[in-house]
Amino acid sequence: MYVYLNDQFVESEKATLHISDLAIQRGYGIFDFFRVRDHVLLYVDDHLDRFLISASIMHLTAPGTKEQLLCIIHDLLQKNSLPDSGIRMILTGGYSPDAYQPVTPNFIVIQSPLVIADSSVPKSISIITHEFVRDIPEAKTINYTIGIWLLKKIKEQQADDVLYHSNGIVTEFPRCNFFIVTQDNTIITPDKNALKGVTRKRILELVGSSFTIKEAPVTFDDIREAKEAFLTSSTKRIQAIVKIDGQAVGNGIPGKITSELLHRLLETEKEFVLLNKQKH
Amino acid sequence: MYVYLNDQFVESEKATLHISDLAIQRGYGIFDFFRVRDHVLLYVDDHLDRFLISASIMHLTAPGTKEQLLCIIHDLLQKNSLPDSGIRMILTGGYSPDAYQPVTPNFIVIQSPLVIADSSVPKSISIITHEFVRDIPEAKTINYTIGIWLLKKIKEQQADDVLYHSNGIVTEFPRCNFFIVTQDNTIITPDKNALKGVTRKRILELVGSSFTIKEAPVTFDDIREAKEAFLTSSTKRIQAIVKIDGQAVGNGIPGKITSELLHRLLETEKEFVLLNKQKH
Repeated sequence: MYVYLNDQFVESEKATLHISDLAIQRGYGIFDFFRVRDHVLLYVDDHLDRFLISASIMHLTAPGTKEQLLCIIHDLLQKNSLPDSGIRMILTGGYSPDAYQPVTPNFIVIQSPLVIADSSVPKSISIITHEFVRDIPEAKTINYTIGIWLLKKIKEQQADDVLYHSNGIVTEFPRCNFFIVTQDNTIITPDKNALKGVTRKRILELVGSSFTIKEAPVTFDDIREAKEAFLTSSTKRIQAIVKIDGQAVGNGIPGKITSELLHRLLETEKEFVLLNKQKH
Repeated sequence: MYVYLNDQFVESEKATLHISDLAIQRGYGIFDFFRVRDHVLLYVDDHLDRFLISASIMHLTAPGTKEQLLCIIHDLLQKNSLPDSGIRMILTGGYSPDAYQPVTPNFIVIQSPLVIADSSVPKSISIITHEFVRDIPEAKTINYTIGIWLLKKIKEQQADDVLYHSNGIVTEFPRCNFFIVTQDNTIITPDKNALKGVTRKRILELVGSSFTIKEAPVTFDDIREAKEAFLTSSTKRIQAIVKIDGQAVGNGIPGKITSELLHRLLETEKEFVLLNKQKH
């Protein structure tokens, strides 16, 4: 497997950064991640847009235009010839002489094998909650200090993930977005202090079909009264949240709307692949 | 110059980490930093204690006992033969196969030239404030996302550093501790949400001499009424804060107690060096 590293394609095992890099010294950098399915880059426009926005917010010089990045990714895909995979782009603060001020970033593109089965039955998960707001929620930084630190607690509580909240208003998971379905079948996802996920965006686009979907504050009370809850992410698509802090959500099994949304998300994904394969 | 990297001494320019390291992927790691003066490791006991505490808090396996780490550092010093320097120890989440779960950490010890003049006249600085609490304030993690992100704002406001606060209670700088001197000559440093700095500890040890020194909450109101304010760090020792968010502190020049404390801190440092040189 090849990795793209600062203008070069290098063999994966040789892809290294000097220890003066600001990610190693100060955890400073941004990234994005998307899936490749049957050679098609899933929602790559959204991911590249967000990658460039994250770079701009964090005052890091972009490693190229959207078109240039797309070229690099296509070249990498051709070199590795792997039809189903995950693409991770990382942009760090660079080799900082004073170990603090960002300089010319280091830019990495990694492709890894990733096949996700097309199951339309949502996985059931139980989650815990933790009071925390990510530092700069609108940027996808590499800072997962709290998310990784909480892995021990998640395991101890025999849970699958952790939902952040601030003063009783829930926001997001370390790597996923959160949704509830109210008793009157309204789908709500937190409007603030959450990363604008690309799968989240796909769900919001289903507005106007048979659902009412909105971005609004979601409190613990809202969750207690909710019929269903689920999370979204590029790799997990949709998972049904059946337990939060030991309490069942709704009737404690994946809900009808959660299942219906997963079905629709899968259809959207397949249509996207078909459409983009025809283009080439 | 040599760097210690996972059981080996390697030439500095060859000291690299594979891109799968969890610092690069997720900004996950801890570190510590201390000075070497005239071949003497300044307050190394405190720094090694804190390094091991940070590792433990962040669920990272320590790379050795305090004694073993001390041996490694002494070997590195001998190899590099640099009498005045800074030593940075970094412990990352390691080469994580799933880019999320910490595994065996990567351990790095870096020595860099660092000479600090023995000026007993404190430097005057002006600072801004920003609402933020570090994620896990008691651990010295590599996460400086907000501190580095704020560099642009600091520059725009023609300031030298930024003081964090939470609901009007000030806490710490990204890399320094904060102190005020009240009208009745009491020295106060924030008691919560701040890293326990080693220079901060040296200042607190001056208790019982001619000063009253305490750890307690410090509010913006306390600062407005204060006679003096200063910061402490291993590399900056003591700097006088003469302006905060554009408002003069006290009469806007370095205060008498700030100067006196810098004088005493320098004496403490020289005594420590003398005492520890005699030991060898």
